[in-house]
Amino acid sequence: MWIPEALISPTSGVRIVPVPGDAGPDGKPATSRLDGAAALDVAVTRGDLVESTHRVHAAVVNADGVLLDATRDPGLKVWWRSCAKPFQVMPLVRSGGLDALGWGVDELALACASHGGEPEHVAVAARMLERLGLEEGDLACGPHDPLASRGGRLLREAGQRPSRLHNNCSGKHSAMLARALQGGLATAGYERAEHPVQRDCRRAVSEWTGVPDSELGVSVDGCGVSVFALPLANMAFSYARLARAAHMGDDASRRVVNAMTGQPFLVGGTDRFDTLVMEAGQGNIICKIGAEGVHTFAIVDQQIGFALKVEDGSPRAQFPAALALLDAYGALPRPLPSPLADFLRRPVRNTRGEQVGTVGVCRARLGEPFA
Amino acid sequence: MWIPEALISPTSGVRIVPVPGDAGPDGKPATSRLDGAAALDVAVTRGDLVESTHRVHAAVVNADGVLLDATRDPGLKVWWRSCAKPFQVMPLVRSGGLDALGWGVDELALACASHGGEPEHVAVAARMLERLGLEEGDLACGPHDPLASRGGRLLREAGQRPSRLHNNCSGKHSAMLARALQGGLATAGYERAEHPVQRDCRRAVSEWTGVPDSELGVSVDGCGVSVFALPLANMAFSYARLARAAHMGDDASRRVVNAMTGQPFLVGGTDRFDTLVMEAGQGNIICKIGAEGVHTFAIVDQQIGFALKVEDGSPRAQFPAALALLDAYGALPRPLPSPLADFLRRPVRNTRGEQVGTVGVCRARLGEPFA
Repeated sequence: MWIPEALISPTSGVRIVPVPGDAGPDGKPATSRLDGAAALDVAVTRGDLVESTHRVHAAVVNADGVLLDATRDPGLKVWWRSCAKPFQVMPLVRSGGLDALGWGVDELALACASHGGEPEHVAVAARMLERLGLEEGDLACGPHDPLASRGGRLLREAGQRPSRLHNNCSGKHSAMLARALQGGLATAGYERAEHPVQRDCRRAVSEWTGVPDSELGVSVDGCGVSVFALPLANMAFSYARLARAAHMGDDASRRVVNAMTGQPFLVGGTDRFDTLVMEAGQGNIICKIGAEGVHTFAIVDQQIGFALKVEDGSPRAQFPAALALLDAYGALPRPLPSPLADFLRRPVRNTRGEQVGTVGVCRARLGEPFA
Repeated sequence: MWIPEALISPTSGVRIVPVPGDAGPDGKPATSRLDGAAALDVAVTRGDLVESTHRVHAAVVNADGVLLDATRDPGLKVWWRSCAKPFQVMPLVRSGGLDALGWGVDELALACASHGGEPEHVAVAARMLERLGLEEGDLACGPHDPLASRGGRLLREAGQRPSRLHNNCSGKHSAMLARALQGGLATAGYERAEHPVQRDCRRAVSEWTGVPDSELGVSVDGCGVSVFALPLANMAFSYARLARAAHMGDDASRRVVNAMTGQPFLVGGTDRFDTLVMEAGQGNIICKIGAEGVHTFAIVDQQIGFALKVEDGSPRAQFPAALALLDAYGALPRPLPSPLADFLRRPVRNTRGEQVGTVGVCRARLGEPFA
C-alpha cells in the first residue's frame, strides 16, 4: 500500500490522515501530481549511462493534515536537523523576546538560517551577541568552514580561520542564548537536552508537527543542541500549518514567514539553494535545508507543506527533487532563473571543464542507458 | 535469483560463470562468506536511529572466472573510473617502455595512482614529464585541489594554487604521454577516444576483464581520457587474473603488482584509504579506488578479485564495505591498525568534536533503531 499504515497509527497520535476514498488503482491519492513512488529519484549520468542513483522519500501535506502526495515512504522517521529552526525560535518570538531586544527581521531570519558564513551573516550574529552582553565564546556550537563558497573565499583572503560565528547555526544559538537570559536561566549548558531552552524547543516542535513529545526522537545535532526525529509527513504538516497560521494573522507565525521570505540572503547566502528558491518564489515560498539530505518547505498561499529525505543523505539529490516538487505544485517561474536552474539539472564537469553528465530527477535505473 | 542471468548471457561474451551446482536454499553460492544481498550495506547513525543508508553492490570472483560471492547485483554495469589504471598502463609496460625510459617502481606506482597531490607525488610526476622532454601544459587533465588533506594544507601554506601536476591522475597521464612518444604519435589529443593511446587502453581493459571491446561502455573520465563501463564481476575478474599472472611470473603483471604493493604511498597518500589498506596487507593486497563509489581490489596470494559500487556514489560507504569484504576473506590483521580502523566504523562528530554517531556496515534500516 502506497500510504503507510504508520501515518494513521493510533499509538503515534499523529494527526496526518491519508486522503479519503478515491485513491487510484495504484494506491496513489487522487490528488497526486507525481508519477509514482520513484518520481523524485535522482540520477547522476555520465556519457549514455546512469552512474549513480539517489532514492528520495517525500510527503506533501496540507494544513488540515491530509496527505496530498508522496514518494517512497512518507511516514519515514528521520532526524529533522536544521529544518526545525523556524520552530526552535518560536518560544522566543511568542514570548515577545524579539521586541524586548529590539530585534527585527534580520535577527529572526538569521535565527531560522543555515547561513553561509559570509561577512553579512557574521555581522548579524555578532550584533545579536553584543546586544545580549555575550561574546562568541558563549556560543555552544563549534567553528566550521563557511557553507557558502564566497564566505570561505573571503575568509581565506583575509587570512582568518573560521570562528563559531561562522557556524551556520550561530543565529539559532544566539536566539537560544536570548531565550535563556529572558527566562533568567544560566546560559552555560543551554545546548543540553535537559535545559529549559531545549525543552521549550522540543515542546514547540511537538506542537507544530502534531507528534506527541514522547514520540519525538531526540539526539544531538551537528551544532550541539537537541535534534528531533519524526515522520516526513509531520514535518510537511508543520510547515503547512505555519503558512496557514501566518495567513490567519497569528503574529509569531507571520513574523517568522516574513523574516524568511523577506531576508532570504540571511537564511542561506550567495548561490545557496534556499536563498535562490525563496527569491524565485517572491514571498510565496519558505524553504529550509537540513543536513543529511532532509529538506522542508511550504507554498505559503496554497498552505501546503513538503518534506523530503534523500535516503543516502546526499545534498546533490535534494535540490533537484525539491525543485521538481515545487514545480509540480506550480510555485516556481518557468523557465527557472539562473543560477537556480543549475540545481534542477546540474552539469557534471570534468577537471577540464567539459560537461560529461548531469544530476537530475530521472526514472532511468543505475547502470542503464537513459533517454 | 541471487546470481543474475546477465553474468552468463551468451550475448555479452562475459566469461564469468556462477559457481556450479551447490548453491544453498537462498540461492547463495556455497562459497559465500557474506550474509545475503544487503550484507555490505552501510548505515550512518545518529543517536539511536539510522539517519542515512547506502546500498552496496559487489562481486567476488576468482582467476578462473567463478563468482564466489556477491551482494545485490554483481552484474551491474557501471563506469570503472580510476580502478582501470593498472590496465591502462599495461600497453606501456608490456612494450618495454619503462626500461627504455629508466622508469622504476615510483613512476609505475604513480601511473596506477589516484594520488593525493602531495609534494612527493608532484615530484614524481614532474620527473616523468621532464624525462619525456614535456611539461605540465602537455597534460590533458585539469587542475583540482589535492585529494589528500596534507597535500591541500601544504599547498595553501606555500601560497600556491593547484596545477595539473596535482591532479590525482597526473601519473597516468604522464604514462600515456610516454606511450604516445614511444609509438611516434602526436602527444596533442592523446586523451581522445580515437587516439591510438586510448584505443590501446581500451583493448587492454577488454583483454583483462573478458568483456569484448564492442561491449565496453566508453565515455569521458573526470580527467578527460576514456572511461570504461563493464559489469562488477568482470572488474573483480580482472584483478584476480592480474594477481594470478603476477604469481605465474608474467613480467608486466609482476611489475604492476610490485609497484602498487611496494609504493602504497605513491598510489594514494597520507591517510588515504588505498595506501593504508595496502600497508596493512603487507604486500598481499592491491587496492584501487575509483570516483562515484567504485572500488576494485585483490588478495594476491588467494588470487581473488573484488569489485564494489556504492549505488549513490558516496565515498564514505565504500571504505567500510571494502574492509568488510577483505576481512571476510581473511586478508586483514585483527584488530585493524589505526588510522585504518577509523574507515571501518568512522565516528560522526559534531562541530564541538563530540561523537554523535557512526558510519559502518550495518543491517539496520533507514529510520529504524540499530542494535
